[in-house]
Amino acid sequence: MSERGQDLLGTIRGPQDLKGLDAEQMTALGAEIRAFLIAKVARTGGHIGPNLGVVELTLAMHRVFDSPRDRFIFDTGHQAYVHKMVTGRQEGFDRLKRRGGLTGYPSRAESEHDLVENCHASTALSYADGMAKAYALRGEARHVVAVVGDGALTGGMCWEALNNIAATRNPLVIIVNDNGRSYAPTVGGLADHLASLRLSPGYEKGLELIKDTLGKTPLVGKPLFGALHAAKRGIKDAVAPQAMFEDLGIKYFGPVDGHDLAAMESALARAKGYGGPVIVHAVTQKGRGYAPAEQDEADRLHAPGAFDPETGRQLAAPSLKWTKVFADELVALAGERPDIVGITAAMPESTGIDALAAAYPDRAFDVGIAEQHATTSAAGLALAGLHPVVAIYATFLNRAFDQVLLDVALHRLPVTFVLDRAGVTGPDGPSHYGIWDMSLLGVVPGLRVAAPRDAETLRTSLREAVAISDGPTVVRFPSGSVPATVPALRRVGSVDVLAETPERKDVLLVTVGRFAQLGVQVAAELEKRGIGVTVVNPLWVRPVPVELVGLAGAHRLVVTVEDGVRNGGIGDAVAKLLRDHELDVPLRDLGVPVQWIDHGTRAEILAEIGLTAADITERVQRWTEGLSTSDQPVRSSIGRD
Amino acid sequence: MSERGQDLLGTIRGPQDLKGLDAEQMTALGAEIRAFLIAKVARTGGHIGPNLGVVELTLAMHRVFDSPRDRFIFDTGHQAYVHKMVTGRQEGFDRLKRRGGLTGYPSRAESEHDLVENCHASTALSYADGMAKAYALRGEARHVVAVVGDGALTGGMCWEALNNIAATRNPLVIIVNDNGRSYAPTVGGLADHLASLRLSPGYEKGLELIKDTLGKTPLVGKPLFGALHAAKRGIKDAVAPQAMFEDLGIKYFGPVDGHDLAAMESALARAKGYGGPVIVHAVTQKGRGYAPAEQDEADRLHAPGAFDPETGRQLAAPSLKWTKVFADELVALAGERPDIVGITAAMPESTGIDALAAAYPDRAFDVGIAEQHATTSAAGLALAGLHPVVAIYATFLNRAFDQVLLDVALHRLPVTFVLDRAGVTGPDGPSHYGIWDMSLLGVVPGLRVAAPRDAETLRTSLREAVAISDGPTVVRFPSGSVPATVPALRRVGSVDVLAETPERKDVLLVTVGRFAQLGVQVAAELEKRGIGVTVVNPLWVRPVPVELVGLAGAHRLVVTVEDGVRNGGIGDAVAKLLRDHELDVPLRDLGVPVQWIDHGTRAEILAEIGLTAADITERVQRWTEGLSTSDQPVRSSIGRD
Repeated sequence: MSERGQDLLGTIRGPQDLKGLDAEQMTALGAEIRAFLIAKVARTGGHIGPNLGVVELTLAMHRVFDSPRDRFIFDTGHQAYVHKMVTGRQEGFDRLKRRGGLTGYPSRAESEHDLVENCHASTALSYADGMAKAYALRGEARHVVAVVGDGALTGGMCWEALNNIAATRNPLVIIVNDNGRSYAPTVGGLADHLASLRLSPGYEKGLELIKDTLGKTPLVGKPLFGALHAAKRGIKDAVAPQAMFEDLGIKYFGPVDGHDLAAMESALARAKGYGGPVIVHAVTQKGRGYAPAEQDEADRLHAPGAFDPETGRQLAAPSLKWTKVFADELVALAGERPDIVGITAAMPESTGIDALAAAYPDRAFDVGIAEQHATTSAAGLALAGLHPVVAIYATFLNRAFDQVLLDVALHRLPVTFVLDRAGVTGPDGPSHYGIWDMSLLGVVPGLRVAAPRDAETLRTSLREAVAISDGPTVVRFPSGSVPATVPALRRVGSVDVLAETPERKDVLLVTVGRFAQLGVQVAAELEKRGIGVTVVNPLWVRPVPVELVGLAGAHRLVVTVEDGVRNGGIGDAVAKLLRDHELDVPLRDLGVPVQWIDHGTRAEILAEIGLTAADITERVQRWTEGLSTSDQPVRSSIGRD
Repeated sequence: MSERGQDLLGTIRGPQDLKGLDAEQMTALGAEIRAFLIAKVARTGGHIGPNLGVVELTLAMHRVFDSPRDRFIFDTGHQAYVHKMVTGRQEGFDRLKRRGGLTGYPSRAESEHDLVENCHASTALSYADGMAKAYALRGEARHVVAVVGDGALTGGMCWEALNNIAATRNPLVIIVNDNGRSYAPTVGGLADHLASLRLSPGYEKGLELIKDTLGKTPLVGKPLFGALHAAKRGIKDAVAPQAMFEDLGIKYFGPVDGHDLAAMESALARAKGYGGPVIVHAVTQKGRGYAPAEQDEADRLHAPGAFDPETGRQLAAPSLKWTKVFADELVALAGERPDIVGITAAMPESTGIDALAAAYPDRAFDVGIAEQHATTSAAGLALAGLHPVVAIYATFLNRAFDQVLLDVALHRLPVTFVLDRAGVTGPDGPSHYGIWDMSLLGVVPGLRVAAPRDAETLRTSLREAVAISDGPTVVRFPSGSVPATVPALRRVGSVDVLAETPERKDVLLVTVGRFAQLGVQVAAELEKRGIGVTVVNPLWVRPVPVELVGLAGAHRLVVTVEDGVRNGGIGDAVAKLLRDHELDVPLRDLGVPVQWIDHGTRAEILAEIGLTAADITERVQRWTEGLSTSDQPVRSSIGRD
């Protein structure tokens, strides 16, 4: 409800309800939407900053175009909250990102207005190119409208798509939502360009121009086409980079003040009528209309958990995060080793590379949302004698698989990848789970993967990783807070033994990473039930340590449990190790099934897929009881292969 | 030896030997190099076309810069033959691409002048950015020189790299080797732009300009920055696209006639002295100086097998290729189904998409060397109701893993990927083996993979694949000629039984794809030795058919054999299937080990890794004899999980 007591928002059940409203009503509606977003997301957590920035942009889209006949695609779909609100889903915001509630991204199950559910960046233009080509072939007169952030344009996929789109005459509208940042404000080494721009004689004049053109929108940290143009062509191009797009052969309209609804509608109407691919360059402000987000230089209100709507302060109690443990240890190592450098793909804060950048500014590189370049430029750094540490989310390693394999590993280069948010994450849904890395990395010759279980083993594995000079290494750890340290009773080679039943060896429970704690719980319960369990936790899981053969041979059953997809995972690797040693002891592997799993809390998801202590205990007990008492591990008498 | 009887080439043992030669000698040397390349490569096969195009370019690099102190990186390293010739490796060309002989790409084992061995496209600028940054940090004054083709610039990685390079001031020289083609002459729908350009009034005048500027270099199918500029800016920019590079913030020198050694040296010398990143735009002609290659519109002399040096005609007897079977069947299917469209990433001839393009020109899309965009634009086509068939080499699927998973499979879209050159290929070395696809695809929910064994099953599986409308499908097949049809004795559900020993069931041999033939050979030999073998060949291998459980349960040992890496492959999948059914029958899996394997013929490589009929027979015999006679498959009595 707006300050004037209207409840316009409540009357909007679908896009058609927007079309009869006058300018004053639309202004009031925009204010209601912002108030609604702040009130709701403060309770649930969510992508508040990006969505406050696209209120007018989204309303203009729905007033000018005709969804779902016209097709809307949101790159990194976290900017679709307003779209959800005006397509009949306001009630859902009470359970935003909760299990069974509204997803944080577009969802085809929720609405016919949603098309693309993946939230990895830089894909929207490729979908749009395909859809526009298909409608042209099928003779359907539909507009395809893609919304893409300026940050996403630093990803190579966008350039591949633009190159193709430029060769068509399809009615495809690309809205560049330029808020001057992806997650971090600058891209790669562009801070230098910005600095030189600010010192240049034309800058003050440029500022006037910006104010004239865009009204109240400040120019903060404009990346890529802003900054690069600025450096080469002067301030005007910093806010009017049409040349670059038109070089690519695509019509350009802009820049448009993305918070001026009439201007946005006018630009979109022109684009709609153009009869070919068009870029509409909308300049917006992240967090618009919410002071704590507008003033949020470190972008902590990009996607916070629940927060105080008055202050923007997050409500969760501070605790020691995995990322912080990594960041601190990296800075310490960098102090000891001048050859260590860090790389992030546009996420310095989220990955902890900001700490390295603060301590050693010339030794931290932000390459933009560009995991491929992050990886291969790391190969280049290593070829020239440095030891790069590439810090990315586990889910985004998918984008650089080929580069890890053929650019880094083929050359046996000492690059360390640090995979944050590994394993089942939760509320962000299927495309953000970090569950594929261990399987993908299993096919990379000479690559070593560590899965630490606590702060101490994270520090240890990072130190060991950067000490390895003959090939790539990976350290993968979960999101969230670090659990209590899980001490080892003893070590067998490189394998930590965490628990064992005296004088009774039924089950060898091989735990990966943070499932160490779970394994110890399971073992305690099974021991009460008369089943002897040895819980081990190999810090390095690729290649799987050969000591597991001897350990497995001393037990009647091997059970593995890992926080990653089962196919090609560590369970399969242990099974293969035993087969290759012709040890045919029964094995069961537990992990994430290969199926799409809806968003929810990590605990809800683990319960759904049977990875709780209670579930595992029951299953291991059944498996153990099913073994005949005479079952002993079969070591084949045949010659070793 | 040149026509005038000199043997300059024989005197060139390293780059320093080039530096004292005068212009006349250099011209003679160039001619000797071309004669040498044609004579040698005609015998061995190899990348003749690209290398004839970079003779002067490479000589200029070595005369202006100081390798290995300065660092040369060749994108898609097949353009490095001339570089090899002037760095002490002329003798090696007699055994080019042969086992133990010279590799077809740069090789660090061969020379200190070689750095990057991977031959997937579009990586060179990323390596170069990393290396230049490292030398800057270490205070080493070295130049980094990257050679990249115009085709490779259509790959997104190049744009990610340029965006980062533009933000630096490092001495990095990018030589764009613009021969107007990647494999195919045009990129995406750019043929339209070229056509309109040729019809425009300014074209004739433009042609004069080109002739003036470039002398004898023809303008044929200039992709991307040529064509796009041309469309937007007129003909001048079609040969002088400096604006686009300078928009990116990188200094541009050119265009330079890449066959004018003095001009190339002059441009490189200026670039060397510039003190920051520079692009030198060299216009070259693929196949230069060799009439059969110059006139080779279909680019069959890009990388032929052995050929007649007089005519350029390849010597191998024509035979039915897997690609041809696919191409013909695709055209037939397209005739029946108007919703079927094809996509290639710059390889229409090699993948057979040219046949579809010939029959249905508006239904075949060449997207450039851009596997990511190929995949996600296919998702877009499918979202709009079409059924795209994406035809790429198995090795290049690596580049699109994330897009297959999250853009196609997450949305359960009917896209069919056709993976050519799957399995161990051979002479092109480690980065061209198609051995990773089955492991990568194993983690993709809802995706189905077929591995046909002959022409008939290829046709069947392609038909079945495009009939599947609720998710992605993959059909993977080898390079080369199709073997004789392997008939099925009978089927068990979806599993073909190819051979079985009457009344004796010792070993179930699960063969994948073309290893069917090998399996039948092995079974015949084992039968002679008194071992009963059932050979099966499931056409669809992801997910592995559940019928294998019953089949396995009737045997004492299961052996799998596949033409892909072992980790996470079909062997692991069969083992997991049996475990999940709690059937603990011993299993052994055969496939490609996770290690780097040197180039050689396919037969040499298979012998090295033990995948010959003789090797497999011996191993299976040993394994079988090692099983105690009482061994029966153990079906656990415990409840199913």
